[in-house]
Amino acid sequence: MSILSFLLGEKRKSALVAKERLQLIIAHERAAGRAPADYLPALQQELVSVISKYVKITNNDIRVHLERQDDLEVIEVKIEIPQP
Amino acid sequence: MSILSFLLGEKRKSALVAKERLQLIIAHERAAGRAPADYLPALQQELVSVISKYVKITNNDIRVHLERQDDLEVIEVKIEIPQP
Repeated sequence: MSILSFLLGEKRKSALVAKERLQLIIAHERAAGRAPADYLPALQQELVSVISKYVKITNNDIRVHLERQDDLEVIEVKIEIPQP
Repeated sequence: MSILSFLLGEKRKSALVAKERLQLIIAHERAAGRAPADYLPALQQELVSVISKYVKITNNDIRVHLERQDDLEVIEVKIEIPQP
């Protein structure tokens, strides 16, 4: 299953609301024995500030979620874009 | 199912190689009747250049994939981080 069909499936399960959303997922997979990437929070901050050059968002529009399991770290940033 | 368990599942299906990888997924979900976000390719370029400040990568380490379906556009950037 592709990322697209996974996200489409997730979307269909959620309530049908006509909102514009941007979702950013950063997944870091470590090689065996390598330390976790401690730059991920700083990287995520910078990525959000790049995004805010393209779409008008405030901190209130952003939800950030970090998950770790085994040698995989995932940062998920969900941005709800305000209607013009 | 969370993004983390989805990505872990994908990882288990793939060959077990001890490489370090960074995956960036940008999903844009349009509100009904809104035009596609034509800034996505430029945004993706900038995001990759931010990432390259944190990890030493060249263009050869990067694969970009764009998919569109219904009102969802997904850009997937896969980066293989060279071993030091």
